[in-house]
Amino acid sequence: MKSINELIQELGALKSDAHNKDFLLSWEQTTDELKQVLLVAEVFKRMRAENIATRVFNSGLGVSIFRDNSTRTRFSYASALNLLGLAQQDLDEGKSQIAHGETVRETANMISFCADAIGIRDDMFLGAGNAYMREVGAALDDGFAQGVLPQRPALVNLQCDIDHPTQSMADLAWLQEHFGSLDSLKGKKIAMTWAYSPSYGKPLSVPQGVIGLMTRFGMDVRLAHPEGYDLIPEVVEVARKNAVASGGKFSHVKTMEEAFAGADIVYPKSWAPYKVMETRTELLRANDHDGLKALEKQCLMQNAKHKNWHCTEDMMKLTKGGEALYMHCLPADISGVSCKEGEVQGSVFERYRIATYKEASWKPYIIAAMILARKYAKPAQILEQLLKEAQARVR
Amino acid sequence: MKSINELIQELGALKSDAHNKDFLLSWEQTTDELKQVLLVAEVFKRMRAENIATRVFNSGLGVSIFRDNSTRTRFSYASALNLLGLAQQDLDEGKSQIAHGETVRETANMISFCADAIGIRDDMFLGAGNAYMREVGAALDDGFAQGVLPQRPALVNLQCDIDHPTQSMADLAWLQEHFGSLDSLKGKKIAMTWAYSPSYGKPLSVPQGVIGLMTRFGMDVRLAHPEGYDLIPEVVEVARKNAVASGGKFSHVKTMEEAFAGADIVYPKSWAPYKVMETRTELLRANDHDGLKALEKQCLMQNAKHKNWHCTEDMMKLTKGGEALYMHCLPADISGVSCKEGEVQGSVFERYRIATYKEASWKPYIIAAMILARKYAKPAQILEQLLKEAQARVR
Amino acid sequence: MKSINELIQELGALKSDAHNKDFLLSWEQTTDELKQVLLVAEVFKRMRAENIATRVFNSGLGVSIFRDNSTRTRFSYASALNLLGLAQQDLDEGKSQIAHGETVRETANMISFCADAIGIRDDMFLGAGNAYMREVGAALDDGFAQGVLPQRPALVNLQCDIDHPTQSMADLAWLQEHFGSLDSLKGKKIAMTWAYSPSYGKPLSVPQGVIGLMTRFGMDVRLAHPEGYDLIPEVVEVARKNAVASGGKFSHVKTMEEAFAGADIVYPKSWAPYKVMETRTELLRANDHDGLKALEKQCLMQNAKHKNWHCTEDMMKLTKGGEALYMHCLPADISGVSCKEGEVQGSVFERYRIATYKEASWKPYIIAAMILARKYAKPAQILEQLLKEAQARVR
Repeated sequence: MKSINELIQELGALKSDAHNKDFLLSWEQTTDELKQVLLVAEVFKRMRAENIATRVFNSGLGVSIFRDNSTRTRFSYASALNLLGLAQQDLDEGKSQIAHGETVRETANMISFCADAIGIRDDMFLGAGNAYMREVGAALDDGFAQGVLPQRPALVNLQCDIDHPTQSMADLAWLQEHFGSLDSLKGKKIAMTWAYSPSYGKPLSVPQGVIGLMTRFGMDVRLAHPEGYDLIPEVVEVARKNAVASGGKFSHVKTMEEAFAGADIVYPKSWAPYKVMETRTELLRANDHDGLKALEKQCLMQNAKHKNWHCTEDMMKLTKGGEALYMHCLPADISGVSCKEGEVQGSVFERYRIATYKEASWKPYIIAAMILARKYAKPAQILEQLLKEAQARVR
Repeated sequence: MKSINELIQELGALKSDAHNKDFLLSWEQTTDELKQVLLVAEVFKRMRAENIATRVFNSGLGVSIFRDNSTRTRFSYASALNLLGLAQQDLDEGKSQIAHGETVRETANMISFCADAIGIRDDMFLGAGNAYMREVGAALDDGFAQGVLPQRPALVNLQCDIDHPTQSMADLAWLQEHFGSLDSLKGKKIAMTWAYSPSYGKPLSVPQGVIGLMTRFGMDVRLAHPEGYDLIPEVVEVARKNAVASGGKFSHVKTMEEAFAGADIVYPKSWAPYKVMETRTELLRANDHDGLKALEKQCLMQNAKHKNWHCTEDMMKLTKGGEALYMHCLPADISGVSCKEGEVQGSVFERYRIATYKEASWKPYIIAAMILARKYAKPAQILEQLLKEAQARVR
Repeated sequence: MKSINELIQELGALKSDAHNKDFLLSWEQTTDELKQVLLVAEVFKRMRAENIATRVFNSGLGVSIFRDNSTRTRFSYASALNLLGLAQQDLDEGKSQIAHGETVRETANMISFCADAIGIRDDMFLGAGNAYMREVGAALDDGFAQGVLPQRPALVNLQCDIDHPTQSMADLAWLQEHFGSLDSLKGKKIAMTWAYSPSYGKPLSVPQGVIGLMTRFGMDVRLAHPEGYDLIPEVVEVARKNAVASGGKFSHVKTMEEAFAGADIVYPKSWAPYKVMETRTELLRANDHDGLKALEKQCLMQNAKHKNWHCTEDMMKLTKGGEALYMHCLPADISGVSCKEGEVQGSVFERYRIATYKEASWKPYIIAAMILARKYAKPAQILEQLLKEAQARVR
């Protein structure tokens, strides 16, 4: 294992412009910028394990805006802020309201006088979440340029309609940990597949985030889902291009079996078709409760036709040596455990339970790394200072 | 521009008994005590701009009690606590409940064992908000005297039925910044006027706070509102007396035009007549929903008769050189932007948008200054220490 | 009064395995472990009074899980975290939901990546609250052992169906303060009695906690309640055995008068019979609103037969010299103050009002002490460091 110092040296050699842009879509970051986040996250995780304080802010707020319920992401973000020394302050705007124009400009400034980070989760409305984040970002740029704000807060996408970069980057960090290095992921087969779930309306951001990111590192990414369960076409196109550029592969297959065949990694997870999400967005905007109920019923019926998209022991046997790494962003719909019939068979999940927890454990460090990379042109210098001082996190 | 050190020297020369009294009404503070808050706020703002840590508490809680929804004040208060090193803890009593007697005494003590500040916003009930704060203050005095509390928390009025001192002091700090000095405000004409809004029940505390404070510094304050939209008579009387004492002026005129004529500053803002607020208080206490609905309807109809109280481009032309500074506590009802017809024309607001943001940006520093002035007999000494040590806020 | 240094010396001499077990039931801790918590709490309280910082964490989260409304406990826990340097993060699972199995295992890990403490209040469901805490504890042990968590968070029972150790330990700390020492409590008569209240469903954890703890220190504990208002039999048995072991006494008498006769301390407080709590638990689980209403009605009628269980001036005259110390966990149902007829007469409460506040004031320190004792094998060393460094809490 590399020493913390070696990781910092590696970090120092990367070329990055990350301090000038928010982390809103993983494919807007260069490979070096992605590597930077991975390295900073690893350094933070190692420092915490060695009881070295990672606090870089003496004071400062980290604002959270959650437009959907969330426990895991909320805690990961709170943990990230705490690692850095920021205090969390939640903006509760009411969940259904979509703010625009002057309201966004004003609110973005009003909450940021003492804010060093803003994390936003907005994944309910197709076409709106990521756009909202950019609107906030532009307002922050303006506020900072005009002298309203003494600093430009780092803006972090905690899940939107298009991408879920804190999740996919945590997934990548976990794969790197599990397989030993980023290089070792080259050529590894990962199956990102739909799976049956007795619920509906699950966002697309996880599968989109995974295919958009894993294709950057030479992996062999296979996407599979039943007919009609398409992801946003533009994102699939991004994955296709990424694969070409990185020397990896991207294929779109028709069955879970095909995707699992010989896979090193499987990521079976339910989502709603993007066409459904479009309709749902319109209905939500129109506040059409009857329409939403009808859509839900129709979707659940549609889902029920695909119960065979189930990550069973038999399905796992198709993977490489029958031992592919199972991944999930949690919570999974576990058959016989959290639901009658779901995404994954109980015994399969139980075997990889701790692995999925470890996968999730990367998130606080990834988020902290994204904030650090946005705030500092040279994160390696800051980390070097922290390492040198080596203040105890806990006495 | 004065150096931070010069500001601290100035501060040291002031006579203040602020550490022995809560900041509940600006007219209960001496002029030196008001200047002290302004100076401390300026020092804090400058220190933050120069990346000097302003943390004076190693630990300690800052309690917030919001009896009305609030985003801006909530964030300003949270920011102020964070600047000082205090952690926010919210007391959520339920919004409609008005506690009295033993409940207040007990709760005030129970939340204060480790609290160094308590900020209260209670502006819904005429005759109740400020009174409640005093009840809390008396309970804190008792708890401290009896040895229940190891410290007497600073109590800050975050808006009550009578005054909104954190707003008016932020307004004053902004005027001082904009015009260059407190002295330069002498003789400046400020129009505090009612303006039409398609909502009702807006509190009186902002206009009352403004006329109660700006008359302290020799300004020429003009109050204007339609017939029947009176402020609390006692507060108008306070403004009148303040003007006499400070060598300023206070006049009560009948039209927006008169108030705007030759004004250096305009502050057009909607509010409900205090008679209506009295009725509303009774209805709220009686939980009379039908009565409240009827009152709202009647008030909106009444408001609608005064749509000409509108801060338009034409109205602005009446001001000094057509270039008066437009002020607002935000959010403004902007015609064609946040509502169809409101307080201010879109193009006027847009021209002063950044100015209103800068006005608001003073609030965290003003609140932090109020807390510091309440906790320390000699705030200048503390600030001198902070300046000397000059710990980095952000590495 | 002993010096802080002497208290720390005393602390160093205790034998404790508290760093290896959560504080879930006071009778699972050895006497030395209880003394350890009392001593650490006293040191923390004294340090705060002398403006010595008690922060031992540079960063870290303290998670709170409140499955019932709470102001006092919430603030006490927040204060304890703040004393130690931890930031509070609330997990809001929805109040009625009882999680089990994988959900608990997963959630416990997901919230704990950066958590050093978890405080849980879960007193609604008989047979469930303490069991839930143990389920969380087991999940944390597993997560830590498997390398998911970089640290094992301290788990603190903030009130369950069986015990309320942070309350009873605060009560004990107050008795120690009031009577001068732990030794002086030997032989002191304490009456833990039921009292009438116009509400129902009050948890059993306070009386159970008091009889389970005070019998550990040689006190003469008398439990009294009307027929049918039994506590959980197993806990009464624990108290009985504790008394034998500590050389104290435990008696179960039939009237408030008998209990008060010659008492040094009285603790009159309402609670629901455990049989009722069992029925209530079943109804809550079945979501049977009608059943719950019927039960409430029946219980209030039953309660009303015992209005003579009232801590009046006459009742107080029965106590030792008429001057027993009155205790309450607050808020008390005060006749003529917070209700028409309640647990205690207004004049009695008023005489002991400040005393009950002081009783409550121990809670933040007790909770902080429980966390410290769970995190450090040698808390005396940490406290010695803090004392030596003597950083100012407030500049």
